[in-house]
Parts: sequence; structure tokens; C-alpha cells
Amino acid sequence: MVGQWANSEAIAGWEQRYRASLINSISGYKPANLIGTSDECSGENLAIMSSVVHLGSAPPLIGLVIRPGSVDRHTLRNIRRTGCYTINHVTHDFYAAAHQTAARYPDAVSEFDAVGLKSERLADFDAPFVAESPIKFGLKLCEEIPITLNGTHFIIGEVVHLYINEGLVNAFGDLDLQAGGVVALSGLDRYYITELIEQLPYAKPK
Amino acid sequence: MVGQWANSEAIAGWEQRYRASLINSISGYKPANLIGTSDECSGENLAIMSSVVHLGSAPPLIGLVIRPGSVDRHTLRNIRRTGCYTINHVTHDFYAAAHQTAARYPDAVSEFDAVGLKSERLADFDAPFVAESPIKFGLKLCEEIPITLNGTHFIIGEVVHLYINEGLVNAFGDLDLQAGGVVALSGLDRYYITELIEQLPYAKPK
Repeated sequence: MVGQWANSEAIAGWEQRYRASLINSISGYKPANLIGTSDECSGENLAIMSSVVHLGSAPPLIGLVIRPGSVDRHTLRNIRRTGCYTINHVTHDFYAAAHQTAARYPDAVSEFDAVGLKSERLADFDAPFVAESPIKFGLKLCEEIPITLNGTHFIIGEVVHLYINEGLVNAFGDLDLQAGGVVALSGLDRYYITELIEQLPYAKPK
Repeated sequence: MVGQWANSEAIAGWEQRYRASLINSISGYKPANLIGTSDECSGENLAIMSSVVHLGSAPPLIGLVIRPGSVDRHTLRNIRRTGCYTINHVTHDFYAAAHQTAARYPDAVSEFDAVGLKSERLADFDAPFVAESPIKFGLKLCEEIPITLNGTHFIIGEVVHLYINEGLVNAFGDLDLQAGGVVALSGLDRYYITELIEQLPYAKPK
């Protein structure tokens, strides 16, 4: 094989930022989502995350990995306090503003204001949505699983309110992320647009 | 807001395939990965999954959601028996073969043979890699967390062998998925190529 190879010892010896960048990329393309939360004392919070994962559709469950001690900590605290949060898709129209929510703003600063995105309240839900986002949903916290191996948290939520802009879902339930302008993410900082190659039929043994 | 809205009751009332398709899409773009495992009795197994998530880079930990009672069950059994598995990126050259691994083949059939992908053994690792894949890694099982809410399993593994084709990683640890031809997935069956919009700088308060 021509290329690079590394085992555990080699990976552990890499310079920290090099390792963070590369290991954050090896899982493949990731979703770019803004997590919206609020807190009675400190107001609204918005944070970009790329660790959302589908868990099941009946009931509709979504997983989210939150890191300790990072800018994610306000998000985690607010989810624990209110039991709810929103997930909002990021598009090519506002990916730079979405990325900027990763900066370490003081607790009292709303990232909506700081980066220039509009907070939207829907269905009396106790967490803010992103007005600019064409696909967004509100979740009720179901379970928080501590991952003791590295101090992260696996948050499981049920989708209780789902909003999708006109024309993005067909009669079969296919959601057209490309038409919605939704971006994909790689590593920590690379944003991509996409182009559909093909929709394949349900796989059966030939 | 112009568009579609649904709450919990509406989602629960959707026709099953419609709900599965839509809820599988709402998390955003997903990685397309082939999971390679082996078993002394039944041989090698290969299964496409889109639920790989980054957990941390030091140590390099990767999460994987495996569903119960599906074609994933051979993968889960083999991971439990051997304590190891591989994750292999899917490219535009073989996405259709990768998708075909989702068919319900008998246990004794190797999906490598059934779909026409080449099994590759590297570093005496006890699970098969996909020869055609430009980015692939072997993992040691660290922890299996049962998700009792819906009977899925969250598998946590540490990357112990990493292989990346020549020219895909720069001096900063940035992995070029686009140059590798890696595809992104949406829902259950839509495959996408990508195009980089921009790599953004580390976000700091302005």
C-alpha cells in the first residue's frame, strides 16, 4: 500500500493540533448543525456541532455527543436545566456565521446576536430555533449517557417538533438536503456543498 | 413559516416507510462507511453504516450506532467475539457495491464476495479491511453501551491502525475527503459527491 500508516503509538505521538485535525476527519463527512438552547438567567445560546447521529425513527430519536469543558458547556447546562433543545441545519448562505458560534463568548452574550443569526420561537417550545434554517427540529431530552472513557456526554433526544421549508420533502419522505442548500462538514473547519450522484433502490440479495 | 410542520403525534401517525425515510434524513449529511468484521465460523462480514461519530482525538475514539435485529446483527456479534472491527470510507468508484452490502445475505456468505469488493488483511489485525478504500482504520472495542430507549447499541472503539492513501493529508493534519473521492450519504439511499466551499479559521470572539 502506498500512503500513510499509523498505529496507536504513532497517533499518540502526533503534535496535538495535527492529531485533532486528522482524527476529527477520519469518520467521514459530518452534518453541520446549530444547537439552540436557552436559560432563564443567561438567555439564549447557539453552538455549532457536528456530532449529531440518527438513532431510530419510531420513536424519532437523535443522539448528540457533547464535549466537556469546551464552548459546548453552556449548551449542556441549558439542556439539563430545561430538558429541551433545537437542532438547525446550516446552509451555504450562513455557514460562516454558524462557524463563528464556536468562539468562546461570555455566558451573557447570545451567539444569535454575536454572529448575526435570527432567533425564532415556535410552538411555545422552550428553546430557540434559527430563523434562517430550512430544516430544524425541537427535541425533548430523554437520556444523558456519560462516556467515562473520555469525559464526553451522549445526549439522546426525541424529536417533538419538526419544521421543513416548502418543497424539500417528496411523497416518499425523501428530504432534499441539496435543494435546501445544506452543507456538509469535514474535520473542524471545512464546509462543502454537495451534488447527488444517485438514489439507490433498497438492497436485496441478487 | 411556509412549509411543513409536524409534532410528535403527527410523526407517530406517518406511514412507516415515509417516517423511516424522513427521520433518517433530518440529522443532515452522514458518512458512508463499510464496517469489516470476521468470525471463525462464518467468515468475513461487511456492512454499510452511516452512524459513525467522532468522540475524541486523544485517545482516538469513534462511536458507532448498531441497530438490533437487522443485517447489522452479524457485525455486532463479530465485534463482540473478536473485540475488533474496521471502518472503511466509501468512494464514488464503489458506492453501489457498498450499498449492496445492506442486503440480507446468509451468514455464511461473505459480502466482500457477494458485492465484488476485495478483502485486505493488514498488520495482523483480526478484521478485514476494504482494499478499494483510500481511508480506513482498525478499531479495538472499548465499550458497548446499550441504548434501552430503542434497543440499539452504541459501540465505542479506539483507532489502533490507520491507513490513508498518498497525498490526502497535508502538514496540518487536514484530510482531503474530496480528493479521496469519498461520498456523503443522506437518508437511507442517496449518495453525494462534494465540493469544498471554504476552510474557515479557528473562531474567536470579534
